[in-house]
Amino acid sequence: MFLFICSSAPFTNKALWQSVLSSFKMAKKVLIVFAHQSSASFNAAAKSAAVEVLTAQGCTVEVSDLYAMNFKAAATAEDIKGDVKDAEHFRYQEETRLAWAEGRLVEDITAEQTKLTEADLVIFQFPMYWFSVPAIMKGWIDRVLTCGFAFTGEKRYSQGLLKEKKAMLSFTTGSLESMFSSTGINGDMNVTLWPIQNGILHYCGFQVLPPQIFWAPSCASPEARQTMLEGWRSRLAGLLEEKPLSFISLDCFDPKAFQLTPDVQEKHASQEFGLTVGIHLGKPLPPQNQMKAGC
Amino acid sequence: MFLFICSSAPFTNKALWQSVLSSFKMAKKVLIVFAHQSSASFNAAAKSAAVEVLTAQGCTVEVSDLYAMNFKAAATAEDIKGDVKDAEHFRYQEETRLAWAEGRLVEDITAEQTKLTEADLVIFQFPMYWFSVPAIMKGWIDRVLTCGFAFTGEKRYSQGLLKEKKAMLSFTTGSLESMFSSTGINGDMNVTLWPIQNGILHYCGFQVLPPQIFWAPSCASPEARQTMLEGWRSRLAGLLEEKPLSFISLDCFDPKAFQLTPDVQEKHASQEFGLTVGIHLGKPLPPQNQMKAGC
Repeated sequence: MFLFICSSAPFTNKALWQSVLSSFKMAKKVLIVFAHQSSASFNAAAKSAAVEVLTAQGCTVEVSDLYAMNFKAAATAEDIKGDVKDAEHFRYQEETRLAWAEGRLVEDITAEQTKLTEADLVIFQFPMYWFSVPAIMKGWIDRVLTCGFAFTGEKRYSQGLLKEKKAMLSFTTGSLESMFSSTGINGDMNVTLWPIQNGILHYCGFQVLPPQIFWAPSCASPEARQTMLEGWRSRLAGLLEEKPLSFISLDCFDPKAFQLTPDVQEKHASQEFGLTVGIHLGKPLPPQNQMKAGC
Repeated sequence: MFLFICSSAPFTNKALWQSVLSSFKMAKKVLIVFAHQSSASFNAAAKSAAVEVLTAQGCTVEVSDLYAMNFKAAATAEDIKGDVKDAEHFRYQEETRLAWAEGRLVEDITAEQTKLTEADLVIFQFPMYWFSVPAIMKGWIDRVLTCGFAFTGEKRYSQGLLKEKKAMLSFTTGSLESMFSSTGINGDMNVTLWPIQNGILHYCGFQVLPPQIFWAPSCASPEARQTMLEGWRSRLAGLLEEKPLSFISLDCFDPKAFQLTPDVQEKHASQEFGLTVGIHLGKPLPPQNQMKAGC
C-alpha cells in the first residue's frame, strides 16, 4: 500500500512528519481469522476493536468470519478439483501439495490463501475450546496452510514460507489466569500454547507475537470486561511494532537428524533454563516463553 | 456383557479356567473414534488391527468412522433442537449443557454419546495434523463431550464424569521420533500431548492409557510398517490391563483457587522433577510423563 503526500508545502512540523512516517509504517494489511458463533460475544467485541483500531491506523483489515462463512472444517478429497493422484490411498498433505502447485485447490481454500498472501499480520480470534482452537478454526489451519504454500520439508520454522509475516493468538478462556499456572489445576499456559504457536504458527515461519489472553471474561463484571477490551485497544495501537516470541533458528539444528547441534547444546549447557518450552533440554522451562517476547 | 458358562462338568483344567476368567475380564466395550479419509491408509490398518484383536478377545468394538460419517465438525446452534436460551448472545457450552439436560441435542451428537456411555475404552485413531488431532476429530471432541455429560465445574479431572472409562490416543506422525525430543526440532512430544491428554481426556475423568505412536510410517519400508502393526497387535492383547498415565488428583488442589495445596507443594519441594508436564512447579519436566505409565 502506497501513501502519496500531495501537499506542495514542505513539512516543517516535526510531529506531523513523524505522524505521517508512522502512518506509512503502519499501513499494513491485517487478516483476522475469527471463530465465534455470536456477534454479541466478547470475542466479537475483541475482533471489532481490532478492526476499528487497526483501520484507524491506516491498516486494511480483512475478517474471515468462519461460522458466518460456514467454513468447511474437514480435510477431504473434495478440497481438490479434478482427479486426485491416488484415490485408493488418498494422502491429504501430498494430494493438496500437488493440487496447490497445479492450481487445483477449491475456491474456499484459495480465497483464504490469497488473503493470507496479502496479509502482513494474521490475528486468530477465538474462544479456547478444549485447550486449543475450535474445530472450525482447526479446519482453517488444516486446509489453508498447504504444503508448498506455507511450508515445505526444507522451508519450515525460521525458514518457513510465511516468515515475512506476523501472526498471533487472541483468545478467551473459561478459567482464571491462576488456574493456568505451573501450580494450577490446568497447568502452565505456556505448555498449552507451545503446540499451537510453535507447531502451527512458527512452523510456517510466522513471527509470533505474544498472545492476547482474555482470562475468563464470562466470569467478569461488565466493567472488568470493558477494561479488558480497553487494554486490547491500547495494545493494538502498537501491535505491529511489537517484538515476537523467541524460537530457535533452523540453523541451530543439524539438517539430517534435526537435533540441536553439539555447539548449541554446549553453549547452553550451563544455562539455568531450557531454550523453549518444547526444546527444554531436560531443564526447567524458560518462564513465560510462550507468553512474552524475550523469554 | 455377561458370560454364561453352560457346561455341567466342573472345570478341572486350570489353563482353560484361567482363559475363561481372562475372557470374562476382557469382555469389554470399545469405541474407536477414527479419522482417516482412506481405507488403504496405515491408520485404517491400525484401526482394523484393533477391531480384530479386541473382538477376538471377546470385546464388542464399535467404530465411529468420522470421514465416512461426514461428521459435522463445527459447534453451532444447529446442534440444539428447538429454541436456544439466548439467540442474541449464543454461548455454545451453556446452550448445549441445557440442551443435553433436556434431551434436545441433535441425533449425531446423542448417537456418539450413547456409544461413549456404553464404552469401557475409547481409542482415538488419527494422523497427527499440526501437532494435534485433525479438525474433524476436534469437532467430535468439541460437540460430543458436552458439559453435564462429560464433566461439570465440580466434576472434572480425577472426578470427571467419565472416570470409570479408559481412553487413549493412537496416531501416526510425519516426523521421526528423534525430532520430537527435548533437543529435536519439533520439541518434546510429551509437551505436545499434554493439552490433549490432560486438557481433554483427563479433564473428563478418563484414565488415559499411554499413547500408541506410529513414528513416520510414511517414511518407513513396508516391512517396518508391518513390524509397527505387529507391535500394536501385541500391545492390544494386554491393553485393557495396562496402567494409565499419572495425573494429579483433584483433591490436591484447593477447591476455590484451584492451586496445589501448600502441603502437596511442600511434599514435592525436594523432588527433582515437576509433578506433570503442565504442573511442573518450575522444575524440569518428569521425563516421559505423557508417554509412559508411572512417570
